[in-house]
Amino acid sequence: MANTVAQADAQLAPNTDAHGLFERIRPHLAALDAFMRKEVENFEPEIREMAAYCLDTTGKRLRPTMVFVSGWQGDGVVSEQLVRAAGVVEMVHLATLVHDDIMDRAEIRRSRRTASREFGPDAAVLLGDALFSQALHIASQFPTTEVCRLVSESTRKVCSGEIMQTLRRRDINISLAEYRRMIDLKTAELFRVSCFLGARLSGHAPAFAAAADRFGHHLGIAYQIYDDLVDFVGEEQRIGKTLGTDLATGKLTLPLMLLLERVSADERSAIVAALRGGRPLGLPASKQRMKELGIASGVVRAIEEELVAAVSVLASFGQLAPVPLMRLLSEMLRQQVAALSAPADSP
Amino acid sequence: MANTVAQADAQLAPNTDAHGLFERIRPHLAALDAFMRKEVENFEPEIREMAAYCLDTTGKRLRPTMVFVSGWQGDGVVSEQLVRAAGVVEMVHLATLVHDDIMDRAEIRRSRRTASREFGPDAAVLLGDALFSQALHIASQFPTTEVCRLVSESTRKVCSGEIMQTLRRRDINISLAEYRRMIDLKTAELFRVSCFLGARLSGHAPAFAAAADRFGHHLGIAYQIYDDLVDFVGEEQRIGKTLGTDLATGKLTLPLMLLLERVSADERSAIVAALRGGRPLGLPASKQRMKELGIASGVVRAIEEELVAAVSVLASFGQLAPVPLMRLLSEMLRQQVAALSAPADSP
Repeated sequence: MANTVAQADAQLAPNTDAHGLFERIRPHLAALDAFMRKEVENFEPEIREMAAYCLDTTGKRLRPTMVFVSGWQGDGVVSEQLVRAAGVVEMVHLATLVHDDIMDRAEIRRSRRTASREFGPDAAVLLGDALFSQALHIASQFPTTEVCRLVSESTRKVCSGEIMQTLRRRDINISLAEYRRMIDLKTAELFRVSCFLGARLSGHAPAFAAAADRFGHHLGIAYQIYDDLVDFVGEEQRIGKTLGTDLATGKLTLPLMLLLERVSADERSAIVAALRGGRPLGLPASKQRMKELGIASGVVRAIEEELVAAVSVLASFGQLAPVPLMRLLSEMLRQQVAALSAPADSP
Repeated sequence: MANTVAQADAQLAPNTDAHGLFERIRPHLAALDAFMRKEVENFEPEIREMAAYCLDTTGKRLRPTMVFVSGWQGDGVVSEQLVRAAGVVEMVHLATLVHDDIMDRAEIRRSRRTASREFGPDAAVLLGDALFSQALHIASQFPTTEVCRLVSESTRKVCSGEIMQTLRRRDINISLAEYRRMIDLKTAELFRVSCFLGARLSGHAPAFAAAADRFGHHLGIAYQIYDDLVDFVGEEQRIGKTLGTDLATGKLTLPLMLLLERVSADERSAIVAALRGGRPLGLPASKQRMKELGIASGVVRAIEEELVAAVSVLASFGQLAPVPLMRLLSEMLRQQVAALSAPADSP
């Protein structure tokens, strides 16, 4: 899950608006990079190199971006507090990736060996733990306990969402409400807290911090559904990763749920068997049926509803500095979704 | 490691002094049990039962005992702050056990299935993460960031110590300094912070909190060396666990280091081969040589040095309420060590 989220992050870059946004937060991301490099020194000397391996990634730092955008104070203004908060959420995210890769038996992430492959799964379990601990340690360096309280709770929720997903692999009796609950916990939760912290630490009024919180929640839900769609209708070459893994690992996601609703009884049996790890069902076959039945458009509608909800919570805060960038972030995701789904549903 | 620590904890109980001590902290441990049961409710409903499974243990709550003893305020005085701190360190400890059992492929702990066996290793990785997160969340409920800061740092150190040990399994080139560094991080660190928090949260002067910190450190080192000795010279029936696991899993501990120093070149080769996972060397053989060469007495000396150091830091605080109980705790361990080693070295 986190794997695919992270890889899909990379797609935001080529977009022109995205380029504009990333241009504006470049100093912030540079400050974050410096912060993370310095953080490496806080690990015990004996594990420093391993920590550096996990922290030095080519990821797009999407959660830090949420912090910086929601706490935007004008071009070139890089607040130390925001950088620290961004470091916390990114380190939590990287810790979850280290553990995800153990569970997925993943060997490669972003063109190099996963920590699990590089250091062995046993060391990777402990290394992920050390990253979680250090993330909370950074969180404890704020003047009050608030960041620690919020981030530790979010981290627990992210883990809970992943436990649910892990335990319900190959289960086809997942309701839409349960699916939404899982993606809320495993993905939207950290997006939500990232946006809240950005707004809050920039000294915005509670009403805007609450709006940023809701914005992050909706954007996170939209993002995860988009990511689940990519897994089915994306083009491997363009996306740069192996697709169809949700079906292969038995994860019931929205595209598959819609597909199951619309196919014949026979087809349903074949898909269910594939999901349960029985008869294999190739990605091309399911991708073809997705197209024929116009599944993508149904999924896209669900994503767009979330994006509309995300932007609408900002309605009465248009005069605040972060809002134009937050809208841009939402618009960027909308464009990516449109680019992804358009060719997939057309004959 | 944590496995053997936890199991060895159980041995403290039958001792008479121990009985006296545990009688006095009975209300504290009862309050802790109630606190832990209530904590279960803070986990997401979907994982609550799994969290309860991990938290409801028959362990001796040794780290909480350190908190209660170092923060002793008189019989029957159960401070809410101490109970909360005890809950934090115990939950961190239980989280490490969940992850240790995955790495050790352990199936049984305290007469029932490990979380890894019960829920599968993937879910257990995440469940351990959720426990860590919740421990830090409880830590964030103190008025200041101090508990969060100390506990997150300790947790990182515990993990670092375990990483070192994991990476150096089957390595015979571990120096005494490196061995001490590993046990300091993996075991003494959490003992240390438990004692410090007890003293600190009871409002003692910084000088006593610092002494409690040192006491916890030395007791933790002593405890881990004792635990390593148990693995070689303990009697399985009396101890109630499988012994000789350090040799089997390739962990170089103090008893083995002393043995390697004293045997002939041929014997050394055989032991090294066993440690490296080559030719098997039965526990009886190594146990016999331990006896013949009087290894236990050398190890006991190392433990006693730590216990002397532990008690000596309390010298100028004899008038404080916690000190008699802290001395008793040290004395209890000394008696256990004596009971363990006496028959082992005699012919």
